[in-house]
Amino acid sequence: MADQKKMVAQITDMEEDFTQWYTDVCTKAELIAYSHIKGFMVIKPYGYALWENMQSLLDGRFKATGVQNVYMPLLIPESLLAKEGELVNGFAPEVAWVTAGGTEPLTERLAIRPTSETVFSDFYKDDVHSYRDLPRLYNQWCSVVRWEKETRPFLRSREFLWQEGHTIHATKEEAEERTQQMLNVYADFLAEDMAIPTIKGQKTEKEKFAGADATYTVEALMHDGRALQSGTSHFFGQKFSKAYGIQFTDRDNQLKYVWQTSWGVTTRMIGAMIMVHGDNRGLVIPPKIAPIQVDIIPIQQKKAGVLEAANRLASALSAFRVKVDDTEKTPGYKFAEQEMRGIPIRIEIGPRDIENGKCVIVRRDNGEKIEADIEDIEGTVKTVLATVQKDMLAKAQAQLDGMTYEARTPEEFRERFDNDKGDGFIKAMWCGDRACEDKIKEEYGVTSRCIPFHQENIAGTCVCCGKPAKKMVYWAKAY
Amino acid sequence: MADQKKMVAQITDMEEDFTQWYTDVCTKAELIAYSHIKGFMVIKPYGYALWENMQSLLDGRFKATGVQNVYMPLLIPESLLAKEGELVNGFAPEVAWVTAGGTEPLTERLAIRPTSETVFSDFYKDDVHSYRDLPRLYNQWCSVVRWEKETRPFLRSREFLWQEGHTIHATKEEAEERTQQMLNVYADFLAEDMAIPTIKGQKTEKEKFAGADATYTVEALMHDGRALQSGTSHFFGQKFSKAYGIQFTDRDNQLKYVWQTSWGVTTRMIGAMIMVHGDNRGLVIPPKIAPIQVDIIPIQQKKAGVLEAANRLASALSAFRVKVDDTEKTPGYKFAEQEMRGIPIRIEIGPRDIENGKCVIVRRDNGEKIEADIEDIEGTVKTVLATVQKDMLAKAQAQLDGMTYEARTPEEFRERFDNDKGDGFIKAMWCGDRACEDKIKEEYGVTSRCIPFHQENIAGTCVCCGKPAKKMVYWAKAY
Repeated sequence: MADQKKMVAQITDMEEDFTQWYTDVCTKAELIAYSHIKGFMVIKPYGYALWENMQSLLDGRFKATGVQNVYMPLLIPESLLAKEGELVNGFAPEVAWVTAGGTEPLTERLAIRPTSETVFSDFYKDDVHSYRDLPRLYNQWCSVVRWEKETRPFLRSREFLWQEGHTIHATKEEAEERTQQMLNVYADFLAEDMAIPTIKGQKTEKEKFAGADATYTVEALMHDGRALQSGTSHFFGQKFSKAYGIQFTDRDNQLKYVWQTSWGVTTRMIGAMIMVHGDNRGLVIPPKIAPIQVDIIPIQQKKAGVLEAANRLASALSAFRVKVDDTEKTPGYKFAEQEMRGIPIRIEIGPRDIENGKCVIVRRDNGEKIEADIEDIEGTVKTVLATVQKDMLAKAQAQLDGMTYEARTPEEFRERFDNDKGDGFIKAMWCGDRACEDKIKEEYGVTSRCIPFHQENIAGTCVCCGKPAKKMVYWAKAY
Repeated sequence: MADQKKMVAQITDMEEDFTQWYTDVCTKAELIAYSHIKGFMVIKPYGYALWENMQSLLDGRFKATGVQNVYMPLLIPESLLAKEGELVNGFAPEVAWVTAGGTEPLTERLAIRPTSETVFSDFYKDDVHSYRDLPRLYNQWCSVVRWEKETRPFLRSREFLWQEGHTIHATKEEAEERTQQMLNVYADFLAEDMAIPTIKGQKTEKEKFAGADATYTVEALMHDGRALQSGTSHFFGQKFSKAYGIQFTDRDNQLKYVWQTSWGVTTRMIGAMIMVHGDNRGLVIPPKIAPIQVDIIPIQQKKAGVLEAANRLASALSAFRVKVDDTEKTPGYKFAEQEMRGIPIRIEIGPRDIENGKCVIVRRDNGEKIEADIEDIEGTVKTVLATVQKDMLAKAQAQLDGMTYEARTPEEFRERFDNDKGDGFIKAMWCGDRACEDKIKEEYGVTSRCIPFHQENIAGTCVCCGKPAKKMVYWAKAY
């Protein structure tokens, strides 16, 4: 077990230093490497395979609602970006500018897309003429660049991978419905596929997306009690369609402006997965998105018949993403690697097991050992993986619930947040004034995460100023 | 049929103006739209769905050979790009430069990747230590930017989508083998999935990739007799590993430099597909990559039971990518649209067919009509699609063979190429001197496409200078 300890010792204890634990897991589980280009990271094969699985499941969910994929230009002329004032003001401080093509300076600067509302709008303007052309439900998978000052793997980097959906509609109602629909797609994907429960709600004016009429969000809570915005869906009203001139002839023969939405999720969700499910042995990946679902580890593999039995098991499990670890490492070291990489289950199989027609399944999420018949292995693994998936969501939900508090008074609020810890979600009433939001952020580094759809009446007065309250808000320190 | 004629009339006759025909097909079949950003195009849903199918089939072929996907930074510091001199000299005239991040100028210019040999090399340098870490078989799907002056949809644009594989190996032999292996993957994919036959061979020194020891290529021939380079695979030797310091400790405990390859194909292949298979009615897409494989068009769809029968057919064909065109358009217009979009087969079904338990399958590639039993429709469609796929390759092969000529003398060479037409591949002998290649290019606009692996002895002397010949070369005017 010395090997195993050595490997586990490579990562910092999460209770000691959560930030360092996170970075250790990202690199030791080989999700990423730091590049030599400041603020940019390399997504390594294991990290990218995770993203591919997430993409595939999400893309299927998008397409089931009628969404189609497209590809839009990477570069945006400054004048095009500037047509909608709020957006450009929101993004100007973090845009990377191209000023030369080949050996010649450009006559106009081009931005590397920080987001593509402007390019989609410019395209839709010519693409749409009649109500018959609507809705347009387009999405693209791509990378975007935002010149962040501080960067951390998956959470904040100068380039990240995402999808951005941009839809246009003939009516306000239809656009609003789509905004909600996509938020629900995100919440369902996070819960059902990534085992991450979220709070659904609306962003305040202060926190909403530059240029949006309304921004909706799904907020997750990390193991250290900090919140992570995990997906957003925006209703733009007619702001972009008026700025970019996207008009159509309606059934009544009138020329009208379209109603618009956009919605996106990013590789940030991988950060959420690490910080919701991970533990001091490393990653814990939900089965549905795991690059490898089953790691078969032969015990005493040099003994006659052991490797053959392991490979027969793998064949019987070909419906899953399975590997046999037949390297020269010790079983203990292999266990530690499988745990570091968060592979949902391992199967141990040795000479005595084979004799008895048995093998041992070990769950990564809770360490439970299950003796299984080799004969029925496919059905057993299917059941165990489904159980792991379900239990991981339940555990994460319990973790979220256990770290959600209420504050009725400014004192209760201060008591929870006036410290260096994350310390969870706090539900508290708000008067609706920006000044209170600003004050809370300044004093505690706490932001309003969302005005949840599910409202509760915690108290009658604002937790900050004591004036009559309008809304219940989820507050937290956030990534 | 007036509708149909009107729609078909939207595209220029390919015999009259092939260039205009090509552009018409790209836009009328809704593969792309021109963006307002000079040199950049929008890939629309139908075009992107085609690319997704191509990606998925190619990616499967890559993974079957052990390749893993990763993601590398978009931006490359100038100093990193410049470490390997030949590469930077080759790409310098067409690199887009980022000079500001947010409101601040950068201390060093960053190139938007024109290709990623440099970034992969910089990563591998720290990632690899021992022979046990080798080979590394990494690939990425992404977009690249090259500041082209003249652009055409799919063939040449300032941004395009591609994959770039970058592998490193312990031995020269293994790297050379991988270079050939990936060239074969491309040739097989093009032939078996895209029904495009190619000539496999090596590029001359003049035409090889900047920085490569050897470049291998698959060359296709378009309907107008011009060649299109459709995929390349490069053997770098140790050029990059020495420039970037990628070393490993071998079994013999010696520190050695790795051997490297790269290989890539792009959205250009969509251009090849259009120009190899298309006709005056529009696209003709091979079944394996077609976004829609079967277009069911009800005849007299308002009559009782017709739409229901069409939908039942669609259900019976759920194993394929199928749609029912139940719009209000006339059948003739629907036929024209299906033909324009190159959907491999359409099924016509009307009241009389239903009575007889029949329907009519019409092949897009050759117009053949096949009466089919509704009962057995799944099996029939499966057979017809497989036949279409096979016949399209055979037809394209016959087209290539029919436009491949030999020239024994300078006169024969001139006779074929001294004109404004494409005029096919010409097989002719070459002395091996760059001067002859330059002269042929200058006089006829003809380039050496490749030194084919399959050599023939056409004549004893160079088709340009008359000196003793070393190699048989495929020459052509090219895109």
